Amino acid sequence: MAKIQPRTLSGFMELLPARQIQFDRMAAIIRESFSLYAYTPLDTPLIEASEILLAKGGGETEKQIYRFTKGDSDLSLRFDLTVPLAKYVALNYARLAFPFRRFQIGKVYRGERAQRGRFREFYQADIDVIGDGQLDISNDAEIPAIIYRTFTSLGLKRFQIRVNNRKILNGFYAMLGLTSKAGAIMRTVDKLEKIGEKSVRDLLTGPDIGLTNEQAAEILKFIDIKGCNADVLAALEGYRGRNPKFDEGLDELTAVAKNLAAFGVPETNFVLDLTIARGLDYYTGTVYETTMLDHPEIGSICSGGRYDNLAEYYTDKQLPGVGISIGLTRLFFVLEDQGYLNDRLNTAPADVLILPMTEDMGPAISLATQLRDNRVRTQIYGEQKKFKQKMNYADKLGVPYVVFLGDDEIKQDKVSLKDMRSGEQELIPTAQALDKIVAAMGANDAEAPILDKGE
Amino acid sequence: MAKIQPRTLSGFMELLPARQIQFDRMAAIIRESFSLYAYTPLDTPLIEASEILLAKGGGETEKQIYRFTKGDSDLSLRFDLTVPLAKYVALNYARLAFPFRRFQIGKVYRGERAQRGRFREFYQADIDVIGDGQLDISNDAEIPAIIYRTFTSLGLKRFQIRVNNRKILNGFYAMLGLTSKAGAIMRTVDKLEKIGEKSVRDLLTGPDIGLTNEQAAEILKFIDIKGCNADVLAALEGYRGRNPKFDEGLDELTAVAKNLAAFGVPETNFVLDLTIARGLDYYTGTVYETTMLDHPEIGSICSGGRYDNLAEYYTDKQLPGVGISIGLTRLFFVLEDQGYLNDRLNTAPADVLILPMTEDMGPAISLATQLRDNRVRTQIYGEQKKFKQKMNYADKLGVPYVVFLGDDEIKQDKVSLKDMRSGEQELIPTAQALDKIVAAMGANDAEAPILDKGE
Repeated sequence: MAKIQPRTLSGFMELLPARQIQFDRMAAIIRESFSLYAYTPLDTPLIEASEILLAKGGGETEKQIYRFTKGDSDLSLRFDLTVPLAKYVALNYARLAFPFRRFQIGKVYRGERAQRGRFREFYQADIDVIGDGQLDISNDAEIPAIIYRTFTSLGLKRFQIRVNNRKILNGFYAMLGLTSKAGAIMRTVDKLEKIGEKSVRDLLTGPDIGLTNEQAAEILKFIDIKGCNADVLAALEGYRGRNPKFDEGLDELTAVAKNLAAFGVPETNFVLDLTIARGLDYYTGTVYETTMLDHPEIGSICSGGRYDNLAEYYTDKQLPGVGISIGLTRLFFVLEDQGYLNDRLNTAPADVLILPMTEDMGPAISLATQLRDNRVRTQIYGEQKKFKQKMNYADKLGVPYVVFLGDDEIKQDKVSLKDMRSGEQELIPTAQALDKIVAAMGANDAEAPILDKGE
Repeated sequence: MAKIQPRTLSGFMELLPARQIQFDRMAAIIRESFSLYAYTPLDTPLIEASEILLAKGGGETEKQIYRFTKGDSDLSLRFDLTVPLAKYVALNYARLAFPFRRFQIGKVYRGERAQRGRFREFYQADIDVIGDGQLDISNDAEIPAIIYRTFTSLGLKRFQIRVNNRKILNGFYAMLGLTSKAGAIMRTVDKLEKIGEKSVRDLLTGPDIGLTNEQAAEILKFIDIKGCNADVLAALEGYRGRNPKFDEGLDELTAVAKNLAAFGVPETNFVLDLTIARGLDYYTGTVYETTMLDHPEIGSICSGGRYDNLAEYYTDKQLPGVGISIGLTRLFFVLEDQGYLNDRLNTAPADVLILPMTEDMGPAISLATQLRDNRVRTQIYGEQKKFKQKMNYADKLGVPYVVFLGDDEIKQDKVSLKDMRSGEQELIPTAQALDKIVAAMGANDAEAPILDKGE
């Protein structure tokens, strides 16, 4: 029979088993962290009616979306988790309690040009809080705490949550009489780290934006405000009273920074950064980015912000919100690529491999059942293979314990237990072996960080 | 602005938050159960090249599949988890250890006519063990143990795992000289429970199949073999020696039944049933179905079997396997529909809702941080709403504890803790409240069955 060459589509991540276990652990830690802040899990279809997903329209989205027909239906694959959330909240408005806090970890689809580290199918891990009519600024203040706990729980240490407020920026540009150019200016200023101050100045005073040298200097001076949070806030206070929007944004940013210590976020992991604008997004207040201090080239690994109205395309209700998103597939790729994954963690599917040395499998099965009743992941190796092949199998999977069960062991109600890491083997009573394995699994890597770099 | 009516596509399950939490709990229990048998988690793309998914071809699949083009690529959404597994194993053959045991819980797509309880997007939860060249029958014997533990862990009690072996059926029909008609006969016999013995007899002797009355009687007598496992096996022994395939199948079925007790499966949940054939599937040996004793009309909620060659369309390697699949979305729908879901379980996103009664949020945030450090899911209610609205919010979500934190409490380092179930409220030291909540959460519903019917 002619064979079809097996392949996985370009731009689609598919992991080998040990890596998959690491990915799943990462997702589980994120889920646990989001849950601690009382976000409820949500799962929405991968497919929606195209008119729902494309309600907002916009060039990039329409180009990248996977769109197709089935029967009479014009369907599309979701390209983010925010639009399905907007639909969900509009659809279920009367049945939800507000503020509505939800997290969702799910795949999204964008038909971008495939390149290394860029994916067409990728997981996003999103949290959003949606208010009904209003949403208190304390929600914005909590987001950095969630990011901090999430990345710290993964074992990441050298990261920085960078926060700004669009009202401060818009207010500032209004002071300069540059409101109509604020969008273009912010998109340019956003490139500061990538292209440097001189290029930004040239762009600002270039034909497209057309600022005077004085205006460009004012802007560069403003976004150069740096230092500890208290210093930045003090510098910003110097602009107070000239524009109400600015003042409002400064109050909000002050509120976000105020309770950091109570939220358990050290100042080393948090910075007020006036260059952050999230230019292309629809944010209207607080904005967040998160960067790895040792890998600024990677850009933001977790971004988000405050928006005024989540579901305006589907409902008249005013639904302000604030949220963040982790591009999980890309983050995992980067962490693996940069050697961050802790390869000492147990990625074997089994904690114990039982090798029955008798024809009657009964004793092996009974032992396996006891181990499983104690939550130990157990496999019985039942194939007729040579001893060496069986041990190779245990090695290849990285199984921490192997149990040999022959006539001698069974007669004495004992097992031969081999610790595959130390190589030690001992003949001990079955009950004792069980205790030993259960204890070892309990002390296992459940609490070990899944990352082991970046001290 | 003109609004687009928010809607979710017909045939796509989308749950309200409390139901979603129950669904996730169910999936987590299944994952945990599969993991105990040392199956490794796998995640494969939702989209594959159409030539990969349609390698086998076949009418129903081609009709139901979601197929579309993007750029030059002919793409399809997966319609099961088995074909992607075959591709994965063929593609990664050299990097996997065999037997390869994997589980996957993921969405699949079938464009069936939408009707109540039928879904176009649904989760399957699959396990498969794949051997390289050979796979021991002990793997088939373990499957009922996995099904048993999985459903028991969910809280289901009145279910029955029904097992047969296709070699027994094929051997039996060969004895009668009916090999060429075996497929048609098995598909007919499979309907016995639905249409009754007389209709089956009529179909067997009808023009399409054309058996003699004697042949039909032999068949109906054979599939009427019933009783405890020992009785069924004894009756089957009466046919031994007339066909080698039959004898092989009988040996296998005997091996599967033999170690049930050691595997911890009671006979009440397990039955040898000669009417099971899984007619339309590609199984070649052991076959499984699982039915709910009080709802036979639902049909099988977990099915599977042994197959000779997993990946024949992609590789020359001989890869026999055995596996089962749970149609998770449909199962959840049925369990909800039949009132099986345990609604006493906590489905609130938060364990504690903190209501700060002071302008300074610091004390509330510190308490929330402590609770979260102790794995208690905590929400601070920061909105400026009336007291009654805040309590309504806690009620609507079903939050078990509410903490009031006003000036009086803060001064004394105490909190007012309200147990929302009992209605009791007490002013106690903060540390004591923390201990009390942590203890209550520890004793919480982690161990409670998610189903509460079917004793």
